[in-house]
Amino acid sequence: MITRMSELFVRTLREDPVDAEVPSHRWLVRAGYIRRTAPGIYSWLPLGFRVLRNVERIVREEMDAIGAQEVHLPALLPKEPYEATGRYADYGDNIFTLTDRKGGGYLLGPTHEEIFTLLVKDLYSSYKDLPLSLYQIQTKYRDEQRPRAGILRGREFVMKDSYSFDVDDEGFAKSYQLHRDAYVRIFDRLGFEYAIVSAMSGAMGGSASEEFLAVSPNGEDTFVRSPGGYAANVEAVRTAIPEALTDEQIAALPAAHVEDTPDTPTIDTLVAVANAKVPRTDRPWQASDTLKNVVVMVRHPDGTREPLVIGVPGDRQVDLKRLGAQLEPAEVEDFTEDDFAAHPGLVRGYIGPGALGAESATGIRYLVDPRVVTGTRWVTGANEPGRHVFDLVTGRDFTPDGTIEAAEVREGDEAPDGSGPLRLARGIEMGHIFQLGRKYAEALGLKVLDANGKLVTVTMGSYGIGVSRAVAAVAEGTSDEKGLCWPRELAPFDVQIVVAGKGDDITAYAGDLSAALDQAGIRVLLDDRKASPGVKFADAELMGMPTTVVVGRGLADGTIEVRDRRTGAAEQLPTADAAARITAIVRG
Amino acid sequence: MITRMSELFVRTLREDPVDAEVPSHRWLVRAGYIRRTAPGIYSWLPLGFRVLRNVERIVREEMDAIGAQEVHLPALLPKEPYEATGRYADYGDNIFTLTDRKGGGYLLGPTHEEIFTLLVKDLYSSYKDLPLSLYQIQTKYRDEQRPRAGILRGREFVMKDSYSFDVDDEGFAKSYQLHRDAYVRIFDRLGFEYAIVSAMSGAMGGSASEEFLAVSPNGEDTFVRSPGGYAANVEAVRTAIPEALTDEQIAALPAAHVEDTPDTPTIDTLVAVANAKVPRTDRPWQASDTLKNVVVMVRHPDGTREPLVIGVPGDRQVDLKRLGAQLEPAEVEDFTEDDFAAHPGLVRGYIGPGALGAESATGIRYLVDPRVVTGTRWVTGANEPGRHVFDLVTGRDFTPDGTIEAAEVREGDEAPDGSGPLRLARGIEMGHIFQLGRKYAEALGLKVLDANGKLVTVTMGSYGIGVSRAVAAVAEGTSDEKGLCWPRELAPFDVQIVVAGKGDDITAYAGDLSAALDQAGIRVLLDDRKASPGVKFADAELMGMPTTVVVGRGLADGTIEVRDRRTGAAEQLPTADAAARITAIVRG
Repeated sequence: MITRMSELFVRTLREDPVDAEVPSHRWLVRAGYIRRTAPGIYSWLPLGFRVLRNVERIVREEMDAIGAQEVHLPALLPKEPYEATGRYADYGDNIFTLTDRKGGGYLLGPTHEEIFTLLVKDLYSSYKDLPLSLYQIQTKYRDEQRPRAGILRGREFVMKDSYSFDVDDEGFAKSYQLHRDAYVRIFDRLGFEYAIVSAMSGAMGGSASEEFLAVSPNGEDTFVRSPGGYAANVEAVRTAIPEALTDEQIAALPAAHVEDTPDTPTIDTLVAVANAKVPRTDRPWQASDTLKNVVVMVRHPDGTREPLVIGVPGDRQVDLKRLGAQLEPAEVEDFTEDDFAAHPGLVRGYIGPGALGAESATGIRYLVDPRVVTGTRWVTGANEPGRHVFDLVTGRDFTPDGTIEAAEVREGDEAPDGSGPLRLARGIEMGHIFQLGRKYAEALGLKVLDANGKLVTVTMGSYGIGVSRAVAAVAEGTSDEKGLCWPRELAPFDVQIVVAGKGDDITAYAGDLSAALDQAGIRVLLDDRKASPGVKFADAELMGMPTTVVVGRGLADGTIEVRDRRTGAAEQLPTADAAARITAIVRG
Repeated sequence: MITRMSELFVRTLREDPVDAEVPSHRWLVRAGYIRRTAPGIYSWLPLGFRVLRNVERIVREEMDAIGAQEVHLPALLPKEPYEATGRYADYGDNIFTLTDRKGGGYLLGPTHEEIFTLLVKDLYSSYKDLPLSLYQIQTKYRDEQRPRAGILRGREFVMKDSYSFDVDDEGFAKSYQLHRDAYVRIFDRLGFEYAIVSAMSGAMGGSASEEFLAVSPNGEDTFVRSPGGYAANVEAVRTAIPEALTDEQIAALPAAHVEDTPDTPTIDTLVAVANAKVPRTDRPWQASDTLKNVVVMVRHPDGTREPLVIGVPGDRQVDLKRLGAQLEPAEVEDFTEDDFAAHPGLVRGYIGPGALGAESATGIRYLVDPRVVTGTRWVTGANEPGRHVFDLVTGRDFTPDGTIEAAEVREGDEAPDGSGPLRLARGIEMGHIFQLGRKYAEALGLKVLDANGKLVTVTMGSYGIGVSRAVAAVAEGTSDEKGLCWPRELAPFDVQIVVAGKGDDITAYAGDLSAALDQAGIRVLLDDRKASPGVKFADAELMGMPTTVVVGRGLADGTIEVRDRRTGAAEQLPTADAAARITAIVRG
């Protein structure tokens, strides 16, 4: 079927939407692919919907190919199963909740682990029924604090979520690998650069997870890669840990000593005063010799608030995103003036290990960066205004309550597996695959009889792809200064035919060519509007079909022009075999 | 791709679900097509999902064929537009509402008139942009008071909704007819018996509407048809109205007279006493000579309650569904003891027109059946215990506040257009098409410039099909005492191959045959389970693929068996050209 621009429900816009922060948002709205209905909630217009369906088709084909079976579960879900696994509380304000006319509690599904677990429990009971992989392509909901960037981070979005069920870890490893391989094929077909990185599992839980990130300067996620192949979301980066000193080596270190260090509320002032007053003989003091203790307030899902002190080398900031990821589902809040007033044991600017720890007088939990290993020597607060303690040795002079991955990760940091220095990049989370283990099966009682007739808890994986987000991510990666520029497999149409002139012969030829291409199975958008060629060319570039065909003045000489949207290359084709030549171009 | 029963996510059940009231619900659950997740909320398992997608495909093809363009709007919608049109209040408890983390009010879309209106207003501004028809296939929500019958009346369901936009009534008439014709093709392809009937528009509003009802004894709707072609939902039936008497004729009637009629609280007792005490000369009194006045309480959407009296001929009941449809969005409640106590002007059992009407002492609104035309003579209550008034003439002795279509419709009643006696039947509402007129465009300001440069309000239609309900309706119409029995175009698979024996030759041949059919584009479900042939045959009949192929003992003699699910006919085919023969059967 030929689609005519004069009838297509589309209106291209000359102005960027006021809230557009990223190219994909700008172009998808300006080219008439999507339209905002409410904050973080978008309508898909005919062009956008075609791209969305193309992404769905690719995802569906690859999921079917690994034997995953398509189902469709509700989006409106009873809250009880989510309470049983703790996710109802963990998600907190991030899910939409509602009450039905009879007072029943419901939520709009963010993901469906609970419901799939119950469904399989409902129908299956034996190891013979496994392995099993189920998936759905469905509308999901998350009440984001700050929805942004159009459909990159929306509150209503389309996801492919799948779930694997295995009787044991060995079976699970196979199911996981099958999914991982399918994801590689899907992202290869979607055609953008992506990285597979270790990730935090967050509210999902489970033992480990990996993310598929579309590499993009506008991505919300930061990730690292090393030359030797280490790759992780910055939230999940493990710090390369120095070797701890032996007791013998520690015995050779000088004893800790407290010094007056007036007016040193910052690391820089401290380093300056230390070098002036207690100079080192081997080299000057530097920021990395200091141990900075940052106090934050942790709000637990049950509403209780707990002070927490994080110790990091003084040359590094605490990365609140990394810290937040470690503490999830608890949230990190500022430690306020009132909080300091309520905890007089914390001497602002001079907080040190001496006043910290679950066993200390303050009772405040103290977690340190993994670099703060046994035997490391530090300059740090002495818990008195204007005083610091020098040569305070971890393990000898203080013992933190544990470590935490909360210090910022820097370009050039060593990879934890020794595979070289880390490079930082930004990406858009396109897929996330989780080793759930038995968390959900345990909470909801999904057990099957194994080969020995014994009841065993099922092992699960869950696997998500942001289908609507993929539309934006591809646009983000492929658009240029003129507009969208679709890979052929995702484009709404293969060819946009521009009628560039008013002659009847031009109209007639464009119609005939459209019909011939349509006959050949090419998806044709015919721009038959009463508009100037200039307007039509600009719209064709904005809308981004891979191939534009211009039927205009050249027709008198027996030629039409074919333009490649990506390269901009133009070619004159004789009208005689134009349909065959264009078909060949489209077929690649 | 061949699907193997041993791997398919399905579990057939021997027992009916406890809440199953209708065959489609029973069989769809027992055959493993759907599974209940919450009241009125179902999960689609692989088999059910395939049928759902088949229905979607048919709907999509026919909508595309009339030039309607597919889009996809959100399901989570801001409430303001629905407040602007009044539907937010009209729907009341029938919609799911929720509040986001910032306090914004939302609802889960029951239908999308408001949002489509705003979208078109957002992008279009000229008559040249019209006509326009948009559609979506989407999950919809309605918080039904009594969800029932599985997916026949669910709270989350899949609908195709489309909307037409025209600059004038003439254009609208074409758009409406295009949709109506497309619906005829869709329902023809779905393959069930249906009726197109006049209907009430309810909360949707607009000037007129038609329903497509699947004829089914388990349908919730009752409709009527006459030999001459009149067809209407019983709620929308117009009563055939007798001719009013002229003033001259009325002058010849006897004067009204009140009689003692003790102990006549019912119509039967009244007729008996009347015949005993004030006998007619021409014929005995009968129930249809009496005017029964029924008092109900009307609850308006704003919460106010208003008494209302309905006058109907004594031989007919008030049909609460018809009454409710007339009063929508107000609801009808019982008139309680307390209500009677609060309205002493209403003499229970003896209520008559003398005490009724907006102008009367009680001030209670009085609406009568359309049969109560000017000049009709009645026996009715005298508003005193034990007394009735005889020969009370409409228009002479009393004037009701208006008429209302609330009396029961009976088999044999005359069609209002004189096309013969009505027959009653039951049906399932499968589609509903609405002439919305300018209701939504007016409320939300959708205007375009017409050919004269004048702003005109757009004329709209809206058109719905219950896509998930269609799955149930087809099951309802085609299932038999053994289970489901799908029309070929809707079946999850074309052929179910039953491996009926343990021999390696049987397994091998079944595998080869499956591969050959798959190659030919036939959708094959291979029952390769380790189960007895009896179990497999029963499951094949329960699951309802149109064709079953049995590969079993006959193989030794070079034959296999092909069974037709609908007719039960079995045929032996030589193995040699079995694949070709089966392909021919499937292709019809």
